[in-house]
Amino acid sequence: MPLHHDGPLARLRRGHEELVLGLLRKHGPLSRAELGRHSGLSRTTLYDIVGALVDSGAVVATAPAAGERRRGRPVETLTLHPEAGQVIGIDFARRAVHVAAINVAHEVMGSAGEAHEPDLPWQERVDVAERLVGSLAGGTLRLGSLGAIGVGVVGPVQDTAAEEHDGTEPRRDLPLLLRKRFGVPVLVDNNTRLAALAEATWGAAAGDQDVLYLRLSHGVGGGLVVGGSLHRGAYGLSGEFGHITVEPDGRRCSCGGRGCLETVASVGAVLEAHDGADDLPTLLADPAAATLLDGVGAKVGTVLAAVCNAIGPGVVVIGGELAEAGEALFGGVGRALAADLMPISRNRVDLRPAALGEAAGALGAIALVLHESPLLARYPASPDSEEHT
Amino acid sequence: MPLHHDGPLARLRRGHEELVLGLLRKHGPLSRAELGRHSGLSRTTLYDIVGALVDSGAVVATAPAAGERRRGRPVETLTLHPEAGQVIGIDFARRAVHVAAINVAHEVMGSAGEAHEPDLPWQERVDVAERLVGSLAGGTLRLGSLGAIGVGVVGPVQDTAAEEHDGTEPRRDLPLLLRKRFGVPVLVDNNTRLAALAEATWGAAAGDQDVLYLRLSHGVGGGLVVGGSLHRGAYGLSGEFGHITVEPDGRRCSCGGRGCLETVASVGAVLEAHDGADDLPTLLADPAAATLLDGVGAKVGTVLAAVCNAIGPGVVVIGGELAEAGEALFGGVGRALAADLMPISRNRVDLRPAALGEAAGALGAIALVLHESPLLARYPASPDSEEHT
Repeated sequence: MPLHHDGPLARLRRGHEELVLGLLRKHGPLSRAELGRHSGLSRTTLYDIVGALVDSGAVVATAPAAGERRRGRPVETLTLHPEAGQVIGIDFARRAVHVAAINVAHEVMGSAGEAHEPDLPWQERVDVAERLVGSLAGGTLRLGSLGAIGVGVVGPVQDTAAEEHDGTEPRRDLPLLLRKRFGVPVLVDNNTRLAALAEATWGAAAGDQDVLYLRLSHGVGGGLVVGGSLHRGAYGLSGEFGHITVEPDGRRCSCGGRGCLETVASVGAVLEAHDGADDLPTLLADPAAATLLDGVGAKVGTVLAAVCNAIGPGVVVIGGELAEAGEALFGGVGRALAADLMPISRNRVDLRPAALGEAAGALGAIALVLHESPLLARYPASPDSEEHT
Repeated sequence: MPLHHDGPLARLRRGHEELVLGLLRKHGPLSRAELGRHSGLSRTTLYDIVGALVDSGAVVATAPAAGERRRGRPVETLTLHPEAGQVIGIDFARRAVHVAAINVAHEVMGSAGEAHEPDLPWQERVDVAERLVGSLAGGTLRLGSLGAIGVGVVGPVQDTAAEEHDGTEPRRDLPLLLRKRFGVPVLVDNNTRLAALAEATWGAAAGDQDVLYLRLSHGVGGGLVVGGSLHRGAYGLSGEFGHITVEPDGRRCSCGGRGCLETVASVGAVLEAHDGADDLPTLLADPAAATLLDGVGAKVGTVLAAVCNAIGPGVVVIGGELAEAGEALFGGVGRALAADLMPISRNRVDLRPAALGEAAGALGAIALVLHESPLLARYPASPDSEEHT
C-alpha cells in the first residue's frame, strides 16, 4: 500500500515559475546566471522555466546595448513584462457590474460600478463592463496590454459548466463574449468566492490562513480560505452557506430546498419580513426593524457556529448589503455563536465586518488572474475558462 | 497592496526533499548524477538536499566495491535507509490502545489492539502499547531502528497544548513518557483526525481530494481532507462535528454546550436511549432498535448536509462502532442528506462506510510520521510534539 503522489513534478514546476517571478519582482532585472544563483535551479531547469515565461509574455528578455556587451554571447537581462501586470477584474453581480484594475506593482488603479435591472442581457452587461473599464484611471488603461481578465459570476461555477442560476440567458457564452470584446483569456469563478479571496488577500482577513467569508446580499453565499488556500470543493460547490437548512419546515428556496438560510437572511427575505420599507437603506434606518435583524443575525450565527465547529476558522468575515446593519445584525450573530460554538473555541473565532465593500468580487477576480497568491497555491488554474464554451 | 508570500523557499526545499525521496523509492539506488537528471535540480541544490537527508539518516550513501570503481572519484550510490522506514503508530483511544507498524516499503507489518478501563493511568497505557508493539510481526520489529512514533490521542490537540479532555491525569506528559520508553521523536495529533488521514490515504476514500470523515464512537468527531490536504483548522480544532448543535434544547454535552450531535449519536447516548441492551453489539442485534438508529442517522445526516453544503466534499466516510449498524443507520443518514443537501449537490456526494476498522487511528499516526503524503503537504510538521512538554 504505497502512498499516493499528486504530481510532484507539476507542483514543482509551478513552484519554480512562482520563484522566478518573485525574484524578478523583488530584485528587478536579472540575468539568467543571477536568477540561477538566487533560485538554486539547475541551468537546464531554469532555461526551461524562463523560456516558458518569456513565451507566455510574463517575462521579457532584453539584450544589452552594443556598448555594454562583453566578449562572447551577449548577456540578456530578464524583467517582468511592464504591462503584463495590468489586470482587470469584472464582477457580474445580480443587479450590478463592478470592475477594478491593478498595475504592474499590484496597486489598485481604480474601481467602478453601475447598477442595472436584474434581467439585463449579457451582451449589454458586457457593454457596461467595457465602459466602466474605459473610465478607470482616467482612461489611461491600455486594453491592448492586458494579460487576462478575471470574472466573477453569480451562482455555482462547476467543472462541467453551464447550469444557469440567475434566470437570464445562458451564462456559458460569457467567457467567449468577453474574449471577443477584450481579446485576452478569461478566467471565471463564483463572485462570492472571489470576494472571499479578496478579503483574505487585501481586506478584513488579510494574511489570515483560515477564513470563513459570508455574504448577505440578494443571495446568501460565502467562501472559505482553508489552511491558507482558497477552497473550491470537490465539484466547485463549496461555501454554499446560504443553502444550509435553518428552518426544516420553512419556505421553499430558489435552490429547490426548503428553509435554507437564504430564505431568511437575504436582502429580499428581510425586506419581505418587514412592513414599511421598500429598500434596504430604509429598512436599516427603521428602529422598528431591530428585532427582525437580531433574529436574522441569530439564524446566521447558528449556521456559522456549525460551520466553525466543522472547519475551525480563525476569522469570520460578514459582508454584503445586509452587513451594513452593523450591531443590529452582528449582536444576534455573536449571541448565536456564543451559544453554539464549542466552548473551547469561543474566544478563538474573530468576527469581523468585510472591508472591501462592493468592489470585493472584482478585486478577487484580479487575484484569481494573478494566481500567484499563496491562497491559490492549490487552486485549479481555470475552473471555468473559455475553453469550456 | 502587495500580495503576501508564504515562504516560497521553505516550501520549495520541502518539495525538493520529497522529490528526492520519491525518486529513490521509485527507482531504487541512484547516483547523485542520476538524481540530478531525474529531479532537474542543480548540482549545488541537489548536494545540499542530499547532504541533509544523509545527515538525518533517511538516506544512505554507499561507495561502490573496489572492483566496480571507474577512474577518478568513486561514484557513490544513494539509497533509502533500509530501516529508517520502519514506523509505528499508536492510538490511545478512550478505552483501548491500538498499534500498527509499516516497513520501509510502506507495507503494514501488522496491527494489534487491547481494550482497557477508561481510567487506566497513562504509564500503564504506555506499557500496553509497548507490549503490543513487541508482538507485531512476530516480534521482528527492531525498536532500535525506529525513526519516530506517531501517536493519536482523544480530544483536541492544540498549538499550546494541554487541556485535558478524557478525565484522567494530564495528557501533556505523554510525549515525554513515550520518548523515554522508545527513544525516538514523538508526533501527536487527534486520533479521529488521524483516522480521517488513514481513510483518505489507504482506506475508504483513498485518492480522494475532498473527504469528510465522521466517527461515531464513545465520542463523536471527525476530520476533513480539504483540497487534497488534511485540515487542522486555525487553532487545531477542526472536524468537531460531534459538537454541532442538533437539539437547541437538548441535553448538556461534555463539551459544555447543549444538544450537540454527540449527545444523540455517541455509543453511550444510543445505549442510554434504548432499553434492554447493555452493550452496542446487543443493541445492534435487536430489531427493536431500528427506529432509534434511523432517527440517530437522520440527525447525523442533518449535520453532514450542513457541513457538505459548506465544504463540498466528494466523499463522506462514516466509521466508528456505531457505523457497524449499517443500513439501519445509513438509511436515516441518506434520507437527511437528500432532504438538506443543496439539490445541485445531491448526486455528487458519495456516502461510504469506513474501511480500516479500529486500526485507522494508528495507521493515521504512521501517515503523520511519514509526512510525505501529499495530504500533509501544508500540514504543520508537529502540532503537539515533545518540545511542548
